[in-house]
Amino acid sequence: MVIGLGLIGTGFMGKAHALAYRNARAVFGDLPETRLARLCDMPDERAQAMADQLGFASATGDWRALVADPAVDIVSITTPNGLHREMALAAIAAGKHVHCEKPLALRLEDAREMEAAAREAGVRTMVGYNYIHNPAIAHARKLVAEGAIGRPVHFRGWVDEDYQADPDLPWSWRATRAEAGLGTLGDLGCHLVSMSQILMGPIESLIADTQIIHADRPLPDGSGRAAVENEDAASAIIRYGSGAQGTLCSSRSAWGRKNRLDWELHGTKGMIAFGQERLNELQLYTNEGPAGRQGFRTILTGPEHPPYGAFCPAPGHQLGFGDLKTIEAAAFLRAIASGAPVFPDFTDALAIEAVIHAIDVSAREGRRVTL
Amino acid sequence: MVIGLGLIGTGFMGKAHALAYRNARAVFGDLPETRLARLCDMPDERAQAMADQLGFASATGDWRALVADPAVDIVSITTPNGLHREMALAAIAAGKHVHCEKPLALRLEDAREMEAAAREAGVRTMVGYNYIHNPAIAHARKLVAEGAIGRPVHFRGWVDEDYQADPDLPWSWRATRAEAGLGTLGDLGCHLVSMSQILMGPIESLIADTQIIHADRPLPDGSGRAAVENEDAASAIIRYGSGAQGTLCSSRSAWGRKNRLDWELHGTKGMIAFGQERLNELQLYTNEGPAGRQGFRTILTGPEHPPYGAFCPAPGHQLGFGDLKTIEAAAFLRAIASGAPVFPDFTDALAIEAVIHAIDVSAREGRRVTL
Amino acid sequence: MVIGLGLIGTGFMGKAHALAYRNARAVFGDLPETRLARLCDMPDERAQAMADQLGFASATGDWRALVADPAVDIVSITTPNGLHREMALAAIAAGKHVHCEKPLALRLEDAREMEAAAREAGVRTMVGYNYIHNPAIAHARKLVAEGAIGRPVHFRGWVDEDYQADPDLPWSWRATRAEAGLGTLGDLGCHLVSMSQILMGPIESLIADTQIIHADRPLPDGSGRAAVENEDAASAIIRYGSGAQGTLCSSRSAWGRKNRLDWELHGTKGMIAFGQERLNELQLYTNEGPAGRQGFRTILTGPEHPPYGAFCPAPGHQLGFGDLKTIEAAAFLRAIASGAPVFPDFTDALAIEAVIHAIDVSAREGRRVTL
Amino acid sequence: MVIGLGLIGTGFMGKAHALAYRNARAVFGDLPETRLARLCDMPDERAQAMADQLGFASATGDWRALVADPAVDIVSITTPNGLHREMALAAIAAGKHVHCEKPLALRLEDAREMEAAAREAGVRTMVGYNYIHNPAIAHARKLVAEGAIGRPVHFRGWVDEDYQADPDLPWSWRATRAEAGLGTLGDLGCHLVSMSQILMGPIESLIADTQIIHADRPLPDGSGRAAVENEDAASAIIRYGSGAQGTLCSSRSAWGRKNRLDWELHGTKGMIAFGQERLNELQLYTNEGPAGRQGFRTILTGPEHPPYGAFCPAPGHQLGFGDLKTIEAAAFLRAIASGAPVFPDFTDALAIEAVIHAIDVSAREGRRVTL
Repeated sequence: MVIGLGLIGTGFMGKAHALAYRNARAVFGDLPETRLARLCDMPDERAQAMADQLGFASATGDWRALVADPAVDIVSITTPNGLHREMALAAIAAGKHVHCEKPLALRLEDAREMEAAAREAGVRTMVGYNYIHNPAIAHARKLVAEGAIGRPVHFRGWVDEDYQADPDLPWSWRATRAEAGLGTLGDLGCHLVSMSQILMGPIESLIADTQIIHADRPLPDGSGRAAVENEDAASAIIRYGSGAQGTLCSSRSAWGRKNRLDWELHGTKGMIAFGQERLNELQLYTNEGPAGRQGFRTILTGPEHPPYGAFCPAPGHQLGFGDLKTIEAAAFLRAIASGAPVFPDFTDALAIEAVIHAIDVSAREGRRVTL
Repeated sequence: MVIGLGLIGTGFMGKAHALAYRNARAVFGDLPETRLARLCDMPDERAQAMADQLGFASATGDWRALVADPAVDIVSITTPNGLHREMALAAIAAGKHVHCEKPLALRLEDAREMEAAAREAGVRTMVGYNYIHNPAIAHARKLVAEGAIGRPVHFRGWVDEDYQADPDLPWSWRATRAEAGLGTLGDLGCHLVSMSQILMGPIESLIADTQIIHADRPLPDGSGRAAVENEDAASAIIRYGSGAQGTLCSSRSAWGRKNRLDWELHGTKGMIAFGQERLNELQLYTNEGPAGRQGFRTILTGPEHPPYGAFCPAPGHQLGFGDLKTIEAAAFLRAIASGAPVFPDFTDALAIEAVIHAIDVSAREGRRVTL
Repeated sequence: MVIGLGLIGTGFMGKAHALAYRNARAVFGDLPETRLARLCDMPDERAQAMADQLGFASATGDWRALVADPAVDIVSITTPNGLHREMALAAIAAGKHVHCEKPLALRLEDAREMEAAAREAGVRTMVGYNYIHNPAIAHARKLVAEGAIGRPVHFRGWVDEDYQADPDLPWSWRATRAEAGLGTLGDLGCHLVSMSQILMGPIESLIADTQIIHADRPLPDGSGRAAVENEDAASAIIRYGSGAQGTLCSSRSAWGRKNRLDWELHGTKGMIAFGQERLNELQLYTNEGPAGRQGFRTILTGPEHPPYGAFCPAPGHQLGFGDLKTIEAAAFLRAIASGAPVFPDFTDALAIEAVIHAIDVSAREGRRVTL
Repeated sequence: MVIGLGLIGTGFMGKAHALAYRNARAVFGDLPETRLARLCDMPDERAQAMADQLGFASATGDWRALVADPAVDIVSITTPNGLHREMALAAIAAGKHVHCEKPLALRLEDAREMEAAAREAGVRTMVGYNYIHNPAIAHARKLVAEGAIGRPVHFRGWVDEDYQADPDLPWSWRATRAEAGLGTLGDLGCHLVSMSQILMGPIESLIADTQIIHADRPLPDGSGRAAVENEDAASAIIRYGSGAQGTLCSSRSAWGRKNRLDWELHGTKGMIAFGQERLNELQLYTNEGPAGRQGFRTILTGPEHPPYGAFCPAPGHQLGFGDLKTIEAAAFLRAIASGAPVFPDFTDALAIEAVIHAIDVSAREGRRVTL
């Protein structure tokens, strides 16, 4: 079995997808052969140059040509979020499997349309919530499943960066509802929700508030200032279907946070905590043994925490961001080959993204929103 | 000038008050002489033994006798929270200055009564929100005042312990609204609010939710189980009068947290973060200098951070919990001697405690509460 | 039983001794009553002012008068190190118990003379290696004794500060062999050796090297530069009597280190690590349980770690530098009252200080030194 | 230009080399095209299977065939250390460039022979001291070069793991001088020396001691116990050519250390510290700005720290072990294409490895060894 990849976009995420698919089988071994079939970017020259660098067999400046290409089995969509919908629908219509970057779409109704189309077409889908593929996260889930911390009762998460912290940063399309959709919730918040979903299960309802920290920003051409329309920060208090509660917080204007995605999971017998900026560590506290010897322990990931061992047989050597993307690609390839389910597909992603829109609605309408 | 201390209660906080007043002048020098005049506990024998150990001139089992004693200028109230009101009102009526442990009272109306009485009587008051007396906190305030992190725009705080985390812990009066009042909000949450007030100013409104994690607990006599009436965990999303926003979270059932009181203050030019379990450290990030050299720095308190130097002329030697209490006592003594204001007096504490009750109301009534 | 304290010196350590003796019985209860009998400093006025502030019954500018005072049972010596010998010998000759700050003396032969005098006179002695009185250290010793980390096989320690790191700091007497004796070894290194002794037992032999980082410094009067005669940094590789090995390192010119005294103790079944700048934490790793759950755990001290509970019944509230000094004073008072041994007395301190001199000799003579 | 890679060995390091060369051009762009030409392992079947997984054009069970293959330009040697010499000499004799894993050889005379052969043949060489290729290390070097911490005066490093910590681990060839050569020094110590060389320059002389912690181990067949011949732990005190001093320590029996390679570099104006288990962080302290704001800052690597940006345009996303190997392969490819020097080639590696042998000699002979 040979699976052909068609990649649309060669920016941050495009390159990450290319490297991930390039490496997945070399790392894991037990995967179908993957062919880097076609790459699309604009203009043609850039597409060709990137195809050459990244090792794709062909290149095009026309994404519809890529979607139509019979050598392409998976369409990877890594373009700006506002373009996902049209590309995904076209790929689904062409019967391709789709690997789409997060979030699915700017508006929830678009995400719903994409999910329905994929479900009806029966193609396989995957959405790029890559932080959940960390062996440390897999280990956290295993610890919870084994009862190491008892029944999960409370969850708190934070996802922060500082790319919009500077008040003097010029205004851009990122500040508009029309082009960017949500603010920090769409960029960062959905990552946190993906963690919450995989660790705690579905959210039942929430109350929330959002904040525009920098009300306007200078126009790049110096002609004045323009309003920021979407939230810089958001906070929600959530109730899970399980009866647990918690909080989710996000800011894109949090100085010093470069890729913070921290969470803590409170159980009846212990606690687990994690921070993405130290992605190879997991903090575990259990109410076991003599009280005087209890404390949070720092578990450094290693071969005991699959699939770390596929990368390195020695503990403590550290996986990186790219490695998590390779695990994600491998999961999708394995799912396509075996027919087994994969997380998060478009249906899972829809549930994830419904939460960030519910936060937005709750904040705007000042009421509890039930999911 | 000699100031006589009358201390009611010799438990955790009673001993802490005794040591603090015993030491304040020795540490600071520039304070009025303090006489440990009288101590009250029950029964008389315990009062006498503790007076002997702690160095009080006399002892009594009758707190009204202490309040009436002309040798007593300050009445320190360190008894269970439900007793604060009656004792404080009596002390105020007797014209004494009152140093009361937090929270002022179980119910907000009681706190209001105490505040009004003190204000009308013109006595000096102080409430034991001792964590705000940390030199690290004073330094944080100075950094903010100097503009080191620009305009404060967001605040997040957490105060957690694990003393009610064990599901098998027997039921006690702590679980009742009548005897204990609020749950984690009264024990811990108000400490966090005191930080929020001193760092960010008054809260304007909030939405909140609370959670009873352990619905019932075994009765100590083995005769069955009884309901837990007050919250194990609470979360609030707040709006400050300044326009800033934030979140406040508290749990008394958070395994592994022994005295967590962490916060982070987001500014337009930087961020400050703090954790009470490492009370001698402050984290500071500023958007200054080459981007490649930026990072959170760990400032270890020392003589540069008053009043650390009163305890030790060398940095990094670490203050402890007791030292913060000594700073608190010194602040009260200095205020009494000079007539200068002190924070937090009963009026300040009422504002602090209004917030935890607002959280409770918001959670019970499912609506935004304005303060 | 009432024990009278005579304190010589009211600087950093003098004040620390005063507070410690002032508080020991109030904190611990089970101690003899302590009377702050007399204080000596120069001139008389300063002595009187400090006696007033610290609560001493009388004051003098003449230390010999203090030593001779029948109200004085313990002489606390907190003067510059070069003065310890004469004062200690006089106090011993007067039959007083002696609490002397570390190190005993500038030269090893002086320390030997002091130790012999104390031993022959039968007075009780104590030397101010106060970091070993930390409940975290007591817990480390207990863990080792209980076999939690198996047989101790290796020890590494570092004690660093930055008070001589600045190349532009003016020259002072601290730089001279005659007045200051050793450099970083005398100021800091001996603290580390005290840890090594109490945790690992006696050192058998060592090889070492020392370094003068700043060869000369500007004279304060601007008249030129003068040579630094004693070491800024020192390193030793040691062999213990037990067969274990290890390293000891010290620098007084290590930027950013404010009171670093870190160590790690390697055992055959685990490891313990500690850092003085976070004195309420102990790191413990044990080879127990599933490999995937192993990790260094941070044990936060609390009532489970005596004598923490004498200060505070709640864990995680943090002891400070002054509290360790109170534990030290209490240990000496208890020893005097009970006749029980105390660590470190002059004999123990002599063994500690023999090591720093051996490091100096090894470095100067380029050979292994056996102790 | 197309460069053909021949890889000998497909274990931990073999796979790492394969992935690194597979990815280098895709990551960096500005590199010659690399062809995974041939792979060697034993038996033939494994070689074929791994060639298939890793994407090599052909496979062989005979390393001499690989060396002779005209499609092979670089020979990567990732076999057990005892085999490096013969393979490298053959590859050099065949005029191939050689990328050899560390250390070059078990014995220093073998390393010397290899270095001389490579130098005389004029082929390009590279040795796998991959931790020095970390952007954090490059940034540390830049900070030093820019004078951020003044003149480097002291260096301390530790490299520890726990793979030989368990006393019950069976005896193996690793314990023999004949087959394994040095113990912890050969496995781990040389990594630390590579850091020391690149950060501090050449070492002039040293004194050292080594320790066999587990004198013997059980034979795997249960027939008794056999002696451990090489060191479990080693410590050295070094003098640099620059006049700086320092210490180097290593243990393979340090419980809890999974891939520790920590160091601290003391300068006259500041300090830099690093730990490999958190390879994306650098600690920096500088004596700048108000004293009360000074502290160690944690710099999280990002695009400001080349070549991080080749992997990811966003800071804080974390590189992993494999990424460092990709940087190493890229450096070698770039050097081959451009003729520019590369670090560490065989000559550099010889200097690195001379230090670990000097430590061994110093420990065995009890004397200072000059390099």
